[in-house]
Amino acid sequence: MKVIILGSGNVAYHIALTFKKKGIKILQIYSRNYSNAKELAEIVDAEAISDLNKINDSADFYFIAVSDKAISEVVGKMPQVSGIVSHTAGCVPISVLDKFSFYGSFYPFQTFTKGREIDFNKIYIFIEGNNKETEQKLTEIALLISNQVEIADLDKRATLHLAAVFGCNFTNHLYSISQKILEDAGLSFDYIKPIIEETALKSCEIEPYNAQTGPAKRKDLEIMNFHQKKLGDNKKIIEFYNLFSSSIMNMNDIGENIEK
Amino acid sequence: MKVIILGSGNVAYHIALTFKKKGIKILQIYSRNYSNAKELAEIVDAEAISDLNKINDSADFYFIAVSDKAISEVVGKMPQVSGIVSHTAGCVPISVLDKFSFYGSFYPFQTFTKGREIDFNKIYIFIEGNNKETEQKLTEIALLISNQVEIADLDKRATLHLAAVFGCNFTNHLYSISQKILEDAGLSFDYIKPIIEETALKSCEIEPYNAQTGPAKRKDLEIMNFHQKKLGDNKKIIEFYNLFSSSIMNMNDIGENIEK
Repeated sequence: MKVIILGSGNVAYHIALTFKKKGIKILQIYSRNYSNAKELAEIVDAEAISDLNKINDSADFYFIAVSDKAISEVVGKMPQVSGIVSHTAGCVPISVLDKFSFYGSFYPFQTFTKGREIDFNKIYIFIEGNNKETEQKLTEIALLISNQVEIADLDKRATLHLAAVFGCNFTNHLYSISQKILEDAGLSFDYIKPIIEETALKSCEIEPYNAQTGPAKRKDLEIMNFHQKKLGDNKKIIEFYNLFSSSIMNMNDIGENIEK
Repeated sequence: MKVIILGSGNVAYHIALTFKKKGIKILQIYSRNYSNAKELAEIVDAEAISDLNKINDSADFYFIAVSDKAISEVVGKMPQVSGIVSHTAGCVPISVLDKFSFYGSFYPFQTFTKGREIDFNKIYIFIEGNNKETEQKLTEIALLISNQVEIADLDKRATLHLAAVFGCNFTNHLYSISQKILEDAGLSFDYIKPIIEETALKSCEIEPYNAQTGPAKRKDLEIMNFHQKKLGDNKKIIEFYNLFSSSIMNMNDIGENIEK
C-alpha cells in the first residue's frame, strides 16, 4: 500500500505519522511551500515536492489535507491519477474531486496540532466514496489506523464538524478568556488546569446537563452582578458572560436550590 | 480534630468524604432538609441535624458549604461557637462571618458533582482568616487533604472564581450545545467525547493560544457561512456562533495560511 499526502499542516502531519507508524509507505509529501514539505517528508521518509506536476501516479491513495478553501485549487492543478483521491474536510462535498475516477472523503474527527502525540485508535474516521468499491477501499485503509470507522455523507460530516466547532474551537477560546482573566490579575493559568480537565472528563462521563454547575445554574443574580462589576469595562468579555448566563438560566429551569 | 459541615450539596459532599477518608472526625452534617443531611451523615458516620440550634459547640472547624446566597441566613441562625467558622465560597467576603471570633474562607477550587470521585490532592485550596492564627489553622487542616494550599483574599478568590466560570461553567454549556447539535441530527454525543477530552488536555499542555484550531482561526468565511446556514433558524446558537467566530478572528490576527 502506497500513499501520497498533499499538505503539511496539522492534519497532514498526523495522518502521515500514523500511516508511517503502521508500515504504510508514504511516497511523497506535497506542499506549495517546499521547506514545509521537506520538514514533514524527512520525518516520514518520503519525497518532498512543491510542484503538483511531479505527483507520482503509482500511489493507491492521495490524501488532500490542505485547508478547506485550498482544496479546489489543489485539485485543479493536480494531474490525473488512477488511485483513490480523498480530502480530509468536514464541510466540503466530495464532488469537488469529481475530475478523478475514484474519490471520496477521509475525515479524521479530532483536533490536531503538530508535534503532539495522538492515539489514532480512539479517533473516529468518517468515510465517503463516489462508489461502493472506493468506499470499501477507503474503509480498509482507515481500519489500519483506527477501530472506529464509519460511512458518513456530507450532511453527517457537516453536523459533526459543527458540533466540534462548539466542543473544541469555541471551548478552547473560553480557555483563552479564562487565561486572560487570570493573567490580567497577575495569576497563573496553572490554577485553572485541574478544573478544565475535570470539566471535560466529568461532562463526558455524566452528560453536560448533569455536570452543569455555577452561579447561572443556581440563578444566583448577586454573584453574577458581582462578576459583571469585576469585569469592569471589558465589554467583549461581558458580552460572553451575559450570553452564557442567560442561556444557562433558561436551559436549566429547575427552580431555586439552597444547597450548592 | 473534629469538624462540622453545614450543607449537603456538591461541595459539602466532597469535603465531608475527603475529611472522613483522612480520618478527621465529622461530628454533624447540617441541612435545612433533614433527609439530605441524613443521607450524607450516614456516608461519613456523623449526626444529621436540620436545626441550627442543635449545632455541637465542641468542633474545631465549622465549614459552611451552602450556596452563596444562603450563607448569611445560615450564619444568622447559628449559635455562637468557639471553633473556626469558614465558608467555601469564591465571591463572598469573610466579613459575613464576623459575628464569630475566628472565621475565614476555605475555598476548594474545583467543579464538584456528588457521587463522582475526586482526587483532592490535585485541588488548590485557597485560605483566608480573620487573623494569622486562624489562617494558620485553616492552612493546617487544608494541608491534610491537599498539597496545594495558598492564602487568597476576596479579590484573588473572585478572580479565580470568574476564570472558572469561563473555563468550567460556560465550557460545559458549550458541551450542551454541541450535544444538542448532534442529537437534533440523530447523532450520539459519544462522537465528540474524544475531541472534548483532547481539547482540554492539549490546551493545558501547550496553552490555549497555541491550541486554537478551526474555521474562525483560519478566517475561512466560506465554511463559517456554511455552518450558519446549517444552523437554520436556531437564533440562540447562531448568536453564540457569531460572537465566538468574531472574537477568535480578532484574537488571532495572524493572516492567511493555506495549510490546515
